[in-house]
Amino acid sequence: MTLKVYADRFSQPCRAILIFCKINGIDFEEITIEVLKLQQFTPEYKEINPMSEVPAIVDGGFKLFESHAILIYLACTNPGVADHWYPADIFKRTKIHSLLDWHHSHLRRGASNSNNINRFLDVDFENDYLNDFILVAGLVYNTILAPLYGLPSNPRAVDEAKKILPKSLSILDDFWLQGSGQFLLGNSEPSIADLSLVCEIMQLEFLSEKDYLRILSPYKKVLQWIKDTKNATAPYFDEIHMTLFNAQKGIREHMLTQSVSSPEGGRKSEVYSEM
Amino acid sequence: MTLKVYADRFSQPCRAILIFCKINGIDFEEITIEVLKLQQFTPEYKEINPMSEVPAIVDGGFKLFESHAILIYLACTNPGVADHWYPADIFKRTKIHSLLDWHHSHLRRGASNSNNINRFLDVDFENDYLNDFILVAGLVYNTILAPLYGLPSNPRAVDEAKKILPKSLSILDDFWLQGSGQFLLGNSEPSIADLSLVCEIMQLEFLSEKDYLRILSPYKKVLQWIKDTKNATAPYFDEIHMTLFNAQKGIREHMLTQSVSSPEGGRKSEVYSEM
Repeated sequence: MTLKVYADRFSQPCRAILIFCKINGIDFEEITIEVLKLQQFTPEYKEINPMSEVPAIVDGGFKLFESHAILIYLACTNPGVADHWYPADIFKRTKIHSLLDWHHSHLRRGASNSNNINRFLDVDFENDYLNDFILVAGLVYNTILAPLYGLPSNPRAVDEAKKILPKSLSILDDFWLQGSGQFLLGNSEPSIADLSLVCEIMQLEFLSEKDYLRILSPYKKVLQWIKDTKNATAPYFDEIHMTLFNAQKGIREHMLTQSVSSPEGGRKSEVYSEM
Repeated sequence: MTLKVYADRFSQPCRAILIFCKINGIDFEEITIEVLKLQQFTPEYKEINPMSEVPAIVDGGFKLFESHAILIYLACTNPGVADHWYPADIFKRTKIHSLLDWHHSHLRRGASNSNNINRFLDVDFENDYLNDFILVAGLVYNTILAPLYGLPSNPRAVDEAKKILPKSLSILDDFWLQGSGQFLLGNSEPSIADLSLVCEIMQLEFLSEKDYLRILSPYKKVLQWIKDTKNATAPYFDEIHMTLFNAQKGIREHMLTQSVSSPEGGRKSEVYSEM
Protein backbone atom coordinates (compact mmCIF):
# COMPACT_ATOMS: atom_id res chain seq x y z
CA MET A 1 0.00 0.00 0.00
CA THR A 2 1.40 3.41 -0.97
CA LEU A 3 2.54 5.80 1.75
CA LYS A 4 -0.03 8.55 2.26
CA VAL A 5 1.17 12.03 3.19
CA TYR A 6 -1.50 14.39 4.56
CA ALA A 7 -0.21 17.88 3.93
CA ASP A 8 -0.90 21.53 3.25
CA ARG A 9 1.87 23.10 1.17
CA PHE A 10 1.41 26.37 3.06
CA SER A 11 2.73 24.55 6.13
CA GLN A 12 6.51 24.43 6.42
CA PRO A 13 6.86 21.00 8.07
CA CYS A 14 4.58 19.57 5.36
CA ARG A 15 6.82 20.97 2.66
CA ALA A 16 9.90 19.44 4.32
CA ILE A 17 8.32 16.01 4.20
CA LEU A 18 7.12 16.34 0.59
CA ILE A 19 10.58 17.48 -0.59
CA PHE A 20 12.23 14.68 1.40
CA CYS A 21 10.02 12.05 -0.26
CA LYS A 22 10.63 13.46 -3.74
CA ILE A 23 14.42 13.87 -3.47
CA ASN A 24 14.72 10.34 -2.09
CA GLY A 25 12.45 8.72 -4.68
CA ILE A 26 9.95 7.57 -2.02
CA ASP A 27 6.68 6.60 -3.63
CA PHE A 28 3.78 8.42 -1.95
CA GLU A 29 0.32 9.82 -2.42
CA GLU A 30 -0.18 13.44 -1.31
CA ILE A 31 -3.54 14.14 0.27
CA THR A 32 -4.19 17.85 0.68
CA ILE A 33 -5.65 18.99 3.99
CA GLU A 34 -6.40 22.69 3.63
CA VAL A 35 -5.81 24.20 7.05
CA LEU A 36 -7.45 27.53 6.22
CA LYS A 37 -10.57 25.61 5.16
CA LEU A 38 -10.44 23.79 8.52
CA GLN A 39 -10.18 20.41 6.83
CA GLN A 40 -7.98 19.23 9.68
CA PHE A 41 -11.06 19.16 11.91
CA THR A 42 -13.11 16.68 9.88
CA PRO A 43 -13.87 13.38 11.67
CA GLU A 44 -12.06 11.57 8.83
CA TYR A 45 -8.85 13.49 9.41
CA LYS A 46 -9.12 13.17 13.18
CA GLU A 47 -8.96 9.42 12.59
CA ILE A 48 -5.56 10.03 10.96
CA ASN A 49 -4.30 12.61 13.45
CA PRO A 50 -6.38 13.21 16.58
CA MET A 51 -4.38 16.41 17.19
CA SER A 52 -5.90 17.93 14.01
CA GLU A 53 -2.57 19.17 12.77
CA VAL A 54 -0.65 18.67 9.57
CA PRO A 55 1.47 16.85 8.48
CA ALA A 56 0.60 13.23 9.19
CA ILE A 57 1.35 10.01 7.34
CA VAL A 58 -0.22 6.59 7.01
CA ASP A 59 2.12 3.83 5.90
CA GLY A 60 0.18 0.62 5.56
CA GLY A 61 -1.62 0.50 8.89
CA PHE A 62 0.94 2.71 10.65
CA LYS A 63 -0.17 6.24 11.50
CA LEU A 64 2.28 8.95 12.52
CA PHE A 65 2.28 12.69 13.17
CA GLU A 66 4.89 15.32 14.15
CA SER A 67 7.15 16.23 11.26
CA HIS A 68 10.53 15.46 12.81
CA ALA A 69 9.33 11.99 13.80
CA ILE A 70 7.99 11.47 10.27
CA LEU A 71 11.30 12.48 8.67
CA ILE A 72 13.19 10.07 10.95
CA TYR A 73 10.72 7.28 10.18
CA LEU A 74 10.98 7.81 6.43
CA ALA A 75 14.79 7.93 6.57
CA CYS A 76 14.92 4.66 8.55
CA THR A 77 12.36 2.66 6.58
CA ASN A 78 13.44 3.51 3.06
CA PRO A 79 16.74 1.81 2.19
CA GLY A 80 17.29 4.20 -0.72
CA VAL A 81 17.71 7.21 1.57
CA ALA A 82 21.39 8.23 1.72
CA ASP A 83 23.03 8.10 5.15
CA HIS A 84 23.72 11.86 5.31
CA TRP A 85 20.00 12.63 5.78
CA TYR A 86 19.92 10.83 9.15
CA PRO A 87 23.31 9.23 9.84
CA ALA A 88 23.56 5.79 11.42
CA ASP A 89 26.58 6.99 13.43
CA ILE A 90 25.22 7.77 16.90
CA PHE A 91 27.39 10.85 17.43
CA LYS A 92 26.30 12.44 14.16
CA ARG A 93 22.70 11.31 14.65
CA THR A 94 22.47 12.68 18.17
CA LYS A 95 23.72 16.08 17.06
CA ILE A 96 20.83 16.13 14.58
CA HIS A 97 18.42 15.32 17.42
CA SER A 98 19.88 18.17 19.48
CA LEU A 99 19.46 20.54 16.54
CA LEU A 100 15.87 19.42 15.86
CA ASP A 101 15.04 19.90 19.55
CA TRP A 102 16.55 23.38 19.39
CA HIS A 103 14.36 24.00 16.33
CA HIS A 104 11.30 23.17 18.45
CA SER A 105 12.20 25.40 21.35
CA HIS A 106 13.72 28.38 19.51
CA LEU A 107 13.43 28.92 15.77
CA ARG A 108 9.96 27.46 15.44
CA ARG A 109 8.69 30.11 17.83
CA GLY A 110 10.33 32.92 15.95
CA ALA A 111 9.24 32.24 12.40
CA SER A 112 5.69 31.10 11.83
CA ASN A 113 3.51 28.08 12.24
CA SER A 114 0.48 27.46 10.13
CA ASN A 115 -0.78 25.19 12.87
CA ASN A 116 -1.20 28.27 15.00
CA ILE A 117 -4.13 29.18 12.84
CA ASN A 118 -5.32 25.73 13.58
CA ARG A 119 -4.88 26.06 17.33
CA PHE A 120 -6.32 29.52 17.24
CA LEU A 121 -9.47 28.34 15.53
CA ASP A 122 -9.66 25.26 17.69
CA VAL A 123 -10.32 27.38 20.74
CA ASP A 124 -12.62 30.17 21.73
CA PHE A 125 -12.28 33.37 19.71
CA GLU A 126 -13.93 35.40 22.42
CA ASN A 127 -11.34 35.03 25.13
CA ASP A 128 -8.77 37.75 25.35
CA TYR A 129 -6.07 35.46 26.56
CA LEU A 130 -6.02 33.72 23.21
CA ASN A 131 -4.14 36.74 22.06
CA ASP A 132 -1.49 35.57 24.48
CA PHE A 133 -1.77 32.02 23.36
CA ILE A 134 -0.90 32.83 19.80
CA LEU A 135 2.10 34.86 20.89
CA VAL A 136 4.12 31.76 20.19
CA ALA A 137 3.03 32.00 16.59
CA GLY A 138 5.52 34.69 15.78
CA LEU A 139 5.69 37.04 12.96
CA VAL A 140 4.06 35.82 9.79
CA TYR A 141 0.70 34.80 11.15
CA ASN A 142 0.15 38.10 12.91
CA THR A 143 1.44 40.53 10.33
CA ILE A 144 0.31 38.79 7.17
CA LEU A 145 -2.04 35.85 7.46
CA ALA A 146 -4.36 37.10 10.18
CA PRO A 147 -5.04 40.51 8.57
CA LEU A 148 -5.36 38.82 5.18
CA TYR A 149 -7.98 36.33 6.35
CA GLY A 150 -9.76 38.77 8.64
CA LEU A 151 -8.66 36.88 11.76
CA PRO A 152 -7.71 38.66 14.97
CA SER A 153 -4.03 39.43 15.14
CA ASN A 154 -1.73 40.29 17.98
CA PRO A 155 0.92 43.00 17.74
CA ARG A 156 2.70 41.62 20.81
CA ALA A 157 3.48 38.47 18.86
CA VAL A 158 5.31 40.67 16.40
CA ASP A 159 7.31 42.14 19.27
CA GLU A 160 8.14 38.66 20.47
CA ALA A 161 9.24 37.59 17.01
CA LYS A 162 11.40 40.70 16.77
CA LYS A 163 13.28 39.42 19.79
CA ILE A 164 13.41 35.69 19.14
CA LEU A 165 13.85 35.56 15.39
CA PRO A 166 17.06 37.62 15.08
CA LYS A 167 18.50 35.75 18.07
CA SER A 168 17.70 32.39 16.49
CA LEU A 169 19.05 33.47 13.11
CA SER A 170 22.19 34.69 14.81
CA ILE A 171 22.66 31.32 16.58
CA LEU A 172 22.17 29.58 13.24
CA ASP A 173 24.76 31.81 11.63
CA ASP A 174 27.34 31.74 14.44
CA PHE A 175 26.87 28.30 15.93
CA TRP A 176 25.00 25.73 13.87
CA LEU A 177 26.57 26.84 10.58
CA GLN A 178 30.13 26.95 11.85
CA GLY A 179 32.56 24.35 10.52
CA SER A 180 33.92 23.40 7.17
CA GLY A 181 30.85 22.11 5.32
CA GLN A 182 28.11 24.35 3.97
CA PHE A 183 25.28 22.65 5.88
CA LEU A 184 24.22 22.64 9.54
CA LEU A 185 26.67 21.05 12.00
CA GLY A 186 29.42 21.71 9.49
CA ASN A 187 28.27 18.81 7.31
CA SER A 188 29.11 18.70 3.62
CA GLU A 189 25.73 17.17 2.73
CA PRO A 190 22.25 18.07 4.00
CA SER A 191 20.41 16.26 6.79
CA ILE A 192 16.73 16.20 7.73
CA ALA A 193 17.54 19.17 10.01
CA ASP A 194 18.65 21.35 7.08
CA LEU A 195 15.44 20.60 5.22
CA SER A 196 13.27 21.14 8.25
CA LEU A 197 14.86 24.45 9.25
CA VAL A 198 15.14 25.92 5.75
CA CYS A 199 11.44 25.21 5.14
CA GLU A 200 10.70 27.04 8.40
CA ILE A 201 12.65 30.10 7.32
CA MET A 202 11.01 30.02 3.88
CA GLN A 203 7.78 30.95 5.64
CA LEU A 204 9.26 34.45 5.92
CA GLU A 205 8.78 34.74 2.15
CA PHE A 206 5.24 35.80 3.03
CA LEU A 207 6.64 39.12 4.22
CA SER A 208 7.27 42.06 1.92
CA GLU A 209 10.51 41.76 -0.02
CA LYS A 210 11.93 44.71 1.91
CA ASP A 211 11.19 43.15 5.29
CA TYR A 212 12.37 39.74 4.17
CA LEU A 213 15.72 41.20 3.14
CA ARG A 214 15.94 43.38 6.23
CA ILE A 215 15.47 40.34 8.48
CA LEU A 216 17.74 37.93 6.66
CA SER A 217 20.48 40.04 5.08
CA PRO A 218 22.65 40.33 8.26
CA TYR A 219 23.02 36.56 8.25
CA LYS A 220 25.28 35.80 5.32
CA LYS A 221 25.86 32.16 6.18
CA VAL A 222 22.13 31.60 6.61
CA LEU A 223 21.43 33.12 3.19
CA GLN A 224 24.08 30.93 1.55
CA TRP A 225 22.82 27.84 3.40
CA ILE A 226 19.24 28.46 2.16
CA LYS A 227 20.62 28.57 -1.40
CA ASP A 228 22.72 25.44 -0.87
CA THR A 229 19.77 23.51 0.55
CA LYS A 230 17.58 24.64 -2.36
CA ASN A 231 20.26 23.47 -4.80
CA ALA A 232 20.79 20.16 -3.01
CA THR A 233 17.07 19.40 -3.28
CA ALA A 234 16.42 20.85 -6.77
CA PRO A 235 14.09 20.76 -8.61
CA TYR A 236 11.75 19.60 -5.84
CA PHE A 237 12.41 22.49 -3.46
CA ASP A 238 10.97 25.06 -5.86
CA GLU A 239 8.25 22.70 -7.08
CA ILE A 240 6.89 22.17 -3.55
CA HIS A 241 7.33 25.85 -2.65
CA MET A 242 5.42 27.01 -5.75
CA THR A 243 2.19 27.34 -3.73
CA LEU A 244 4.04 29.62 -1.32
CA PHE A 245 5.69 31.65 -4.09
CA ASN A 246 2.34 32.17 -5.84
CA ALA A 247 0.69 33.24 -2.58
CA GLN A 248 3.65 35.48 -1.83
CA LYS A 249 3.19 37.27 -5.14
CA GLY A 250 -0.49 37.85 -4.44
CA ILE A 251 0.12 38.94 -0.86
CA ARG A 252 2.86 41.40 -1.82
CA GLU A 253 0.61 42.95 -4.49
CA HIS A 254 -2.24 43.11 -1.95
CA MET A 255 0.02 44.77 0.64
CA LEU A 256 1.20 47.32 -1.89
CA THR A 257 -2.39 48.18 -2.89
CA GLN A 258 -3.43 48.44 0.78
CA SER A 259 -0.60 50.73 1.77
CA VAL A 260 -1.33 53.02 -1.16
CA SER A 261 -5.13 53.10 -0.97
CA SER A 262 -6.16 53.18 2.70
CA PRO A 263 -5.03 54.76 5.95
CA GLU A 264 -5.44 51.38 7.65
CA GLY A 265 -3.33 49.77 4.99
CA GLY A 266 -0.73 52.43 5.54
CA ARG A 267 -0.66 51.71 9.24
CA LYS A 268 -0.29 48.01 8.60
CA SER A 269 2.66 48.50 6.33
CA GLU A 270 4.35 50.42 9.15
CA VAL A 271 4.11 47.29 11.24
CA TYR A 272 5.94 45.38 8.55
CA SER A 273 8.54 48.03 8.02
CA GLU A 274 9.27 48.25 11.72
CA MET A 275 11.08 44.91 11.45
CA MET B 1 36.65 9.37 31.19
CA THR B 2 33.44 9.51 33.22
CA LEU B 3 30.32 10.99 31.69
CA LYS B 4 29.68 14.48 33.06
CA VAL B 5 26.09 15.63 33.54
CA TYR B 6 25.60 19.39 34.03
CA ALA B 7 22.32 19.79 35.84
CA ASP B 8 20.13 21.72 38.23
CA ARG B 9 17.73 19.44 40.09
CA PHE B 10 15.09 22.19 40.02
CA SER B 11 14.95 21.70 36.26
CA GLN B 12 12.68 18.91 35.09
CA PRO B 13 14.69 17.76 32.03
CA CYS B 14 17.78 17.60 34.27
CA ARG B 15 15.98 15.35 36.72
CA ALA B 16 14.88 13.03 33.88
CA ILE B 17 18.50 12.55 32.82
CA LEU B 18 19.79 12.00 36.36
CA ILE B 19 17.10 9.40 37.07
CA PHE B 20 17.76 7.71 33.73
CA CYS B 21 21.48 7.39 34.49
CA LYS B 22 20.84 6.04 37.98
CA ILE B 23 18.16 3.49 37.07
CA ASN B 24 20.33 2.18 34.24
CA GLY B 25 23.53 1.99 36.26
CA ILE B 26 25.32 4.52 34.03
CA ASP B 27 28.44 5.83 35.74
CA PHE B 28 28.42 9.65 35.77
CA GLU B 29 29.57 12.72 37.60
CA GLU B 30 26.89 15.30 38.38
CA ILE B 31 28.02 18.90 38.10
CA THR B 32 25.51 21.33 39.56
CA ILE B 33 24.77 24.46 37.54
CA GLU B 34 22.50 26.62 39.67
CA VAL B 35 20.21 28.42 37.27
CA LEU B 36 18.87 30.86 39.86
CA LYS B 37 22.47 31.85 40.62
CA LEU B 38 23.01 32.39 36.87
CA GLN B 39 25.82 29.85 36.77
CA GLN B 40 24.69 28.87 33.25
CA PHE B 41 26.10 32.18 32.01
CA THR B 42 29.70 31.67 33.11
CA PRO B 43 32.26 31.48 30.28
CA GLU B 44 33.19 27.97 31.51
CA TYR B 45 29.63 26.71 31.13
CA LYS B 46 29.17 28.45 27.78
CA GLU B 47 32.07 26.28 26.58
CA ILE B 48 29.91 23.26 27.49
CA ASN B 49 26.61 24.65 26.21
CA PRO B 50 26.71 27.91 24.24
CA MET B 51 22.91 28.18 24.68
CA SER B 52 23.41 28.64 28.46
CA GLU B 53 20.73 26.14 29.32
CA VAL B 54 20.69 23.01 31.43
CA PRO B 55 21.03 20.05 31.06
CA ALA B 56 24.14 19.31 29.03
CA ILE B 57 26.55 16.40 29.01
CA VAL B 58 30.17 15.83 28.12
CA ASP B 59 31.10 12.24 27.31
CA GLY B 60 34.81 12.03 26.62
CA GLY B 61 35.23 14.83 24.11
CA PHE B 62 31.59 14.72 22.98
CA LYS B 63 29.39 17.63 24.09
CA LEU B 64 25.61 17.50 23.85
CA PHE B 65 22.63 19.57 24.97
CA GLU B 66 18.81 19.28 24.70
CA SER B 67 17.40 16.70 27.08
CA HIS B 68 15.57 14.47 24.61
CA ALA B 69 18.71 14.18 22.49
CA ILE B 70 20.74 13.37 25.61
CA LEU B 71 18.32 10.61 26.68
CA ILE B 72 18.47 9.08 23.19
CA TYR B 73 22.26 9.27 23.17
CA LEU B 74 22.57 7.64 26.60
CA ALA B 75 20.13 4.87 25.65
CA CYS B 76 22.06 4.12 22.44
CA THR B 77 25.59 4.24 23.84
CA ASN B 78 25.11 2.22 27.02
CA PRO B 79 24.59 -1.47 26.24
CA GLY B 80 23.12 -2.09 29.70
CA VAL B 81 20.05 0.08 28.97
CA ALA B 82 16.99 -2.17 28.46
CA ASP B 83 15.31 -1.92 25.06
CA HIS B 84 12.00 -0.60 26.43
CA TRP B 85 13.57 2.79 27.25
CA TYR B 86 14.21 3.52 23.54
CA PRO B 87 13.19 0.49 21.45
CA ALA B 88 15.29 -0.62 18.48
CA ASP B 89 12.07 -1.45 16.58
CA ILE B 90 11.52 1.50 14.26
CA PHE B 91 7.73 1.56 14.67
CA LYS B 92 7.94 1.67 18.46
CA ARG B 93 10.88 4.09 18.36
CA THR B 94 9.16 6.48 15.99
CA LYS B 95 6.08 6.66 18.18
CA ILE B 96 8.38 7.77 21.01
CA HIS B 97 9.81 10.48 18.75
CA SER B 98 6.28 11.64 17.91
CA LEU B 99 5.42 11.78 21.61
CA LEU B 100 8.61 13.66 22.52
CA ASP B 101 7.90 16.16 19.74
CA TRP B 102 4.37 16.58 21.09
CA HIS B 103 5.94 17.19 24.51
CA HIS B 104 7.95 20.06 23.01
CA SER B 105 5.04 21.72 21.30
CA HIS B 106 2.27 21.16 23.87
CA LEU B 107 2.90 19.96 27.40
CA ARG B 108 6.19 21.77 27.84
CA ARG B 109 4.39 25.06 27.24
CA GLY B 110 1.68 24.28 29.76
CA ALA B 111 3.69 23.18 32.77
CA SER B 112 6.84 25.07 33.60
CA ASN B 113 10.37 25.49 32.40
CA SER B 114 13.17 26.56 34.66
CA ASN B 115 15.03 27.64 31.55
CA ASN B 116 12.47 30.39 31.17
CA ILE B 117 14.07 32.06 34.13
CA ASN B 118 17.24 31.64 32.20
CA ARG B 119 15.84 33.14 29.01
CA PHE B 120 14.17 35.84 30.98
CA LEU B 121 17.36 36.89 32.65
CA ASP B 122 19.29 36.53 29.44
CA VAL B 123 17.42 39.43 27.92
CA ASP B 124 16.48 42.94 28.82
CA PHE B 125 14.34 43.31 31.94
CA GLU B 126 13.21 46.75 30.90
CA ASN B 127 11.25 45.87 27.81
CA ASP B 128 7.57 45.31 28.29
CA TYR B 129 7.34 42.74 25.59
CA LEU B 130 9.42 40.37 27.66
CA ASN B 131 6.26 39.85 29.59
CA ASP B 132 4.95 38.33 26.39
CA PHE B 133 8.09 36.40 25.80
CA ILE B 134 7.72 34.51 29.04
CA LEU B 135 4.12 33.67 28.28
CA VAL B 136 5.45 30.37 27.06
CA ALA B 137 6.71 29.70 30.56
CA GLY B 138 3.33 28.72 31.84
CA LEU B 139 2.10 28.39 35.30
CA VAL B 140 4.75 27.65 37.86
CA TYR B 141 7.25 30.33 37.00
CA ASN B 142 4.66 33.10 37.10
CA THR B 143 2.62 32.08 40.10
CA ILE B 144 5.35 30.71 42.31
CA LEU B 145 8.95 31.23 41.29
CA ALA B 146 8.77 34.81 40.04
CA PRO B 147 7.00 36.21 43.14
CA LEU B 148 9.27 34.14 45.35
CA TYR B 149 12.46 35.46 43.83
CA GLY B 150 11.16 38.99 43.35
CA LEU B 151 11.22 38.66 39.56
CA PRO B 152 8.54 40.25 37.37
CA SER B 153 5.66 37.88 36.72
CA ASN B 154 2.95 37.84 34.12
CA PRO B 155 -0.66 36.98 34.93
CA ARG B 156 -1.40 36.36 31.24
CA ALA B 157 0.98 33.40 31.34
CA VAL B 158 -1.25 31.94 34.02
CA ASP B 159 -4.23 32.40 31.72
CA GLU B 160 -2.36 30.66 28.93
CA ALA B 161 -1.43 27.78 31.19
CA LYS B 162 -5.05 27.50 32.29
CA LYS B 163 -5.92 26.83 28.69
CA ILE B 164 -3.01 24.67 27.56
CA LEU B 165 -2.32 22.59 30.62
CA PRO B 166 -5.76 21.00 31.08
CA LYS B 167 -5.89 20.37 27.32
CA SER B 168 -2.49 18.69 27.36
CA LEU B 169 -3.36 16.65 30.45
CA SER B 170 -6.58 15.61 28.80
CA ILE B 171 -4.72 14.46 25.67
CA LEU B 172 -2.32 12.51 27.88
CA ASP B 173 -5.24 10.87 29.67
CA ASP B 174 -7.40 10.15 26.62
CA PHE B 175 -4.84 9.55 23.90
CA TRP B 176 -1.27 8.82 24.97
CA LEU B 177 -2.32 6.69 27.95
CA GLN B 178 -4.86 4.60 26.06
CA GLY B 179 -4.07 0.94 25.50
CA SER B 180 -3.41 -2.04 27.67
CA GLY B 181 -0.12 -1.14 29.37
CA GLN B 182 0.16 1.39 32.18
CA PHE B 183 2.74 3.58 30.41
CA LEU B 184 2.53 6.01 27.50
CA LEU B 185 1.70 4.51 24.09
CA GLY B 186 0.09 1.60 25.92
CA ASN B 187 3.49 0.13 26.78
CA SER B 188 3.91 -2.21 29.71
CA GLU B 189 7.34 -0.77 30.58
CA PRO B 190 8.50 2.86 30.69
CA SER B 191 10.33 4.65 27.90
CA ILE B 192 12.40 7.84 27.92
CA ALA B 193 9.14 9.64 27.09
CA ASP B 194 7.48 8.52 30.33
CA LEU B 195 10.42 9.76 32.35
CA SER B 196 10.64 13.04 30.47
CA LEU B 197 6.93 13.85 30.72
CA VAL B 198 6.45 12.76 34.33
CA CYS B 199 9.40 14.95 35.39
CA GLU B 200 7.70 17.84 33.57
CA ILE B 201 4.44 17.33 35.42
CA MET B 202 6.29 16.98 38.73
CA GLN B 203 7.14 20.67 38.38
CA LEU B 204 3.53 21.33 39.37
CA GLU B 205 4.45 20.13 42.86
CA PHE B 206 5.60 23.71 43.41
CA LEU B 207 1.95 24.76 43.53
CA SER B 208 -0.14 24.63 46.69
CA GLU B 209 -1.42 21.14 47.47
CA LYS B 210 -4.97 22.35 46.82
CA ASP B 211 -4.12 23.69 43.35
CA TYR B 212 -1.99 20.67 42.52
CA LEU B 213 -4.89 18.35 43.30
CA ARG B 214 -7.39 20.60 41.55
CA ILE B 215 -5.34 20.53 38.36
CA LEU B 216 -4.46 16.86 38.32
CA SER B 217 -7.38 15.08 40.01
CA PRO B 218 -9.65 15.00 36.90
CA TYR B 219 -6.99 12.92 35.12
CA LYS B 220 -7.13 9.53 36.80
CA LYS B 221 -4.90 7.76 34.28
CA VAL B 222 -2.31 10.53 34.52
CA LEU B 223 -2.25 10.24 38.32
CA GLN B 224 -1.84 6.46 38.15
CA TRP B 225 0.86 6.78 35.47
CA ILE B 226 2.85 9.23 37.63
CA LYS B 227 2.75 6.64 40.45
CA ASP B 228 3.72 3.81 38.09
CA THR B 229 6.66 5.78 36.68
CA LYS B 230 7.81 6.67 40.22
CA ASN B 231 7.63 2.99 41.19
CA ALA B 232 9.40 1.83 38.03
CA THR B 233 12.31 4.17 38.77
CA ALA B 234 12.41 3.79 42.57
CA PRO B 235 14.33 4.67 44.67
CA TYR B 236 15.98 7.15 42.31
CA PHE B 237 12.85 9.08 41.39
CA ASP B 238 12.32 10.31 44.93
CA GLU B 239 16.04 10.71 45.55
CA ILE B 240 16.45 13.08 42.60
CA HIS B 241 13.19 14.89 43.35
CA MET B 242 14.19 15.49 47.00
CA THR B 243 15.45 19.02 46.16
CA LEU B 244 12.03 19.77 44.65
CA PHE B 245 10.13 18.24 47.58
CA ASN B 246 12.16 20.23 50.10
CA ALA B 247 11.61 23.45 48.15
CA GLN B 248 7.93 22.60 47.80
CA LYS B 249 7.60 22.28 51.57
CA GLY B 250 9.25 25.67 52.09
CA ILE B 251 7.21 27.33 49.36
CA ARG B 252 3.90 25.97 50.64
CA GLU B 253 4.71 27.21 54.16
CA HIS B 254 5.73 30.59 52.71
CA MET B 255 2.49 30.81 50.70
CA LEU B 256 0.44 29.98 53.75
CA THR B 257 2.19 32.67 55.82
CA GLN B 258 1.79 35.24 53.04
CA SER B 259 -1.93 34.61 52.55
CA VAL B 260 -2.52 34.91 56.29
CA SER B 261 -0.30 37.90 57.06
CA SER B 262 -0.58 40.39 54.19
CA PRO B 263 -3.21 41.76 51.81
CA GLU B 264 -0.79 41.23 48.93
CA GLY B 265 -0.25 37.65 50.01
CA GLY B 266 -4.00 37.20 50.12
CA ARG B 267 -4.34 38.48 46.56
CA LYS B 268 -1.59 36.17 45.37
CA SER B 269 -3.21 33.14 46.87
CA GLU B 270 -6.37 34.02 44.95
CA VAL B 271 -4.34 33.67 41.77
CA TYR B 272 -3.38 30.17 42.78
CA SER B 273 -6.86 29.20 43.84
CA GLU B 274 -8.33 30.38 40.56
CA MET B 275 -6.81 27.35 38.90
